[in-house]
Amino acid sequence: MSTKSPFSWVSRQAIFSALAIFAVLFFCSYAQAQTDPLPSWNDGPAKQAIVELVKATTDKASPNFVAPEARIATFDQDGTTWVEHPVYTQVVYCLERVPVVVKAKPELKNVEPFKTVLSGDREAIAKLSLKDFEKIAAVTLTGITVDEFEAQVSKWIATAKHPRWDRLYTELTYEPMLEVMRYVRENGYKTYIVTGGGQDFVRVYSERVYGIPPAQVVGTAGGVKYSYDKNGKPILTKEPKLLLNDNFAGKPEGIHLEIGARPIIAFGNSIGDRQMLEYTKAGSGARLALLVLHDDAVREYAYGPAQGLPDTNVGTFTQALYDEAKKDGWIIISMKNDWKRIFSFE
Amino acid sequence: MSTKSPFSWVSRQAIFSALAIFAVLFFCSYAQAQTDPLPSWNDGPAKQAIVELVKATTDKASPNFVAPEARIATFDQDGTTWVEHPVYTQVVYCLERVPVVVKAKPELKNVEPFKTVLSGDREAIAKLSLKDFEKIAAVTLTGITVDEFEAQVSKWIATAKHPRWDRLYTELTYEPMLEVMRYVRENGYKTYIVTGGGQDFVRVYSERVYGIPPAQVVGTAGGVKYSYDKNGKPILTKEPKLLLNDNFAGKPEGIHLEIGARPIIAFGNSIGDRQMLEYTKAGSGARLALLVLHDDAVREYAYGPAQGLPDTNVGTFTQALYDEAKKDGWIIISMKNDWKRIFSFE
Repeated sequence: MSTKSPFSWVSRQAIFSALAIFAVLFFCSYAQAQTDPLPSWNDGPAKQAIVELVKATTDKASPNFVAPEARIATFDQDGTTWVEHPVYTQVVYCLERVPVVVKAKPELKNVEPFKTVLSGDREAIAKLSLKDFEKIAAVTLTGITVDEFEAQVSKWIATAKHPRWDRLYTELTYEPMLEVMRYVRENGYKTYIVTGGGQDFVRVYSERVYGIPPAQVVGTAGGVKYSYDKNGKPILTKEPKLLLNDNFAGKPEGIHLEIGARPIIAFGNSIGDRQMLEYTKAGSGARLALLVLHDDAVREYAYGPAQGLPDTNVGTFTQALYDEAKKDGWIIISMKNDWKRIFSFE
Repeated sequence: MSTKSPFSWVSRQAIFSALAIFAVLFFCSYAQAQTDPLPSWNDGPAKQAIVELVKATTDKASPNFVAPEARIATFDQDGTTWVEHPVYTQVVYCLERVPVVVKAKPELKNVEPFKTVLSGDREAIAKLSLKDFEKIAAVTLTGITVDEFEAQVSKWIATAKHPRWDRLYTELTYEPMLEVMRYVRENGYKTYIVTGGGQDFVRVYSERVYGIPPAQVVGTAGGVKYSYDKNGKPILTKEPKLLLNDNFAGKPEGIHLEIGARPIIAFGNSIGDRQMLEYTKAGSGARLALLVLHDDAVREYAYGPAQGLPDTNVGTFTQALYDEAKKDGWIIISMKNDWKRIFSFE
């Protein structure tokens, strides 16, 4: 007679089934552990800091464990997740929109700054003042319904190309940053764009390009007005009224307004991101602030303190920012040294 | 010799495993199908409309299928997800906060409207003007950091009780509405509170009470100011400056600002929710607008058109709202007839 197993009441079938389920689970976790979540990053302090922060905040045994609902990662956009040089994409949009607007409103044709924009004289356009750009923004971004605006941007962004690469602007996202977004999301983080750019503009493509839904885009926002069209249908019209200037102190203020919690990780690249990174680092527990340094003139652009450029451009990485970063333990990401590749098409 | 099975290359072990996995999956879906997702609702047109909308928007074969990222459900709070009578909970908070503020600022003691509030004379307090309440809101809700405010509300809401039931305000949420929130979330919807109440106030308890994270609370919001405390630590201070009045037209405007997409389902209970429901219904495909009618004087309160009350109170369900709802196919939820039970403690 065969020896009676102490588990004879468990059918062989059940044992096989249990083993199979364990095997599936084990294989899944094994496959995950073997994959580098950040393959476009070179090994170095930046990659290490990101991986360590994610581990520290997601390991239940860690003193810096963060509950999933508090895992928030914020990303500036221009210069942090995609190319911002030589001109912000949204500014290109506004300039290219001017002829369309003038066609509908011919009275603007001989009025500045529209006359200069229509001339196509790049040197003259580059010399336009902030006040001029505000006028351009007002006629190209407001006075239409939010649905019309979405349709216009959606159509434009599907074909507009960057002159240097002759590729869609949406292809000029940084592959290493897309990897970080996916990596932190896989670890229970919610990812947010926190941009000085227009909130309504970025929301048009955020889901498709970054995997970030419109509700998780915080940006410079104007007021909208609720009314009814001639058929009695409710409409929301974009108004030339600034609600949130999502730059500098406006970034933590916008984060409070639309997220309501302090980020655990924040990425920026210019003095416009300074307060967001300070606010992030000032939180309790493990926090990480990172700055993308544009120091790769060959593969992208080089600007900022490394090049000794003047600190006058609000979008740049100033010497003062560099000093604050060094003093307060922020991580500086060198595009040249930390990124194995920059774009997906490389 | 035994007959060779055509599947002899598949081991018995693999077959058992596959069967076990199917059994688990089948049992899960079977168990789900057998559970009524809305047990606190009586069968009727309201329950039916909710279930039908969820089915139509989540069934891939339905012409009204909605992609998961566009599944948005918005809920007004006061009178829609918890009791709002006889006084809004946040107003109670502000009134009870006055003595604490006056202790720190004794110069307010003999100044109106604080003097009246301190007197405890309910009749006199009830007669205070909107302007008086704005002054009370300014001293009790602003001039402190967002962290201090959160700590104060958190402490208060943990013990503050409604006089009629002698229960925590947070226990006076409507069980049928909590069920709807869970039901739509299980079907891929994101749930949002869209309240005329203070955004920062509701965010303190929204996760715990509704399972809704702070970022998914849209409410009346004031500005915050970024600065540094005496130790150089960044702080955000609540300012007496209105950014968003999340009532009436402010609801769709706030939805655009903080969600950036139109709801598929929206719940309200008063004329302050009118534009949110209109905006929701005006979207393409299947949409649902619902109004909670307070017609149960025994288990809760009865007010609104059913009682022939005057339409002067901005928080009420006016006859005009009732007429619009009937005309435009909004669903009216009768607390008396549609809800089997109202509170979880019943």
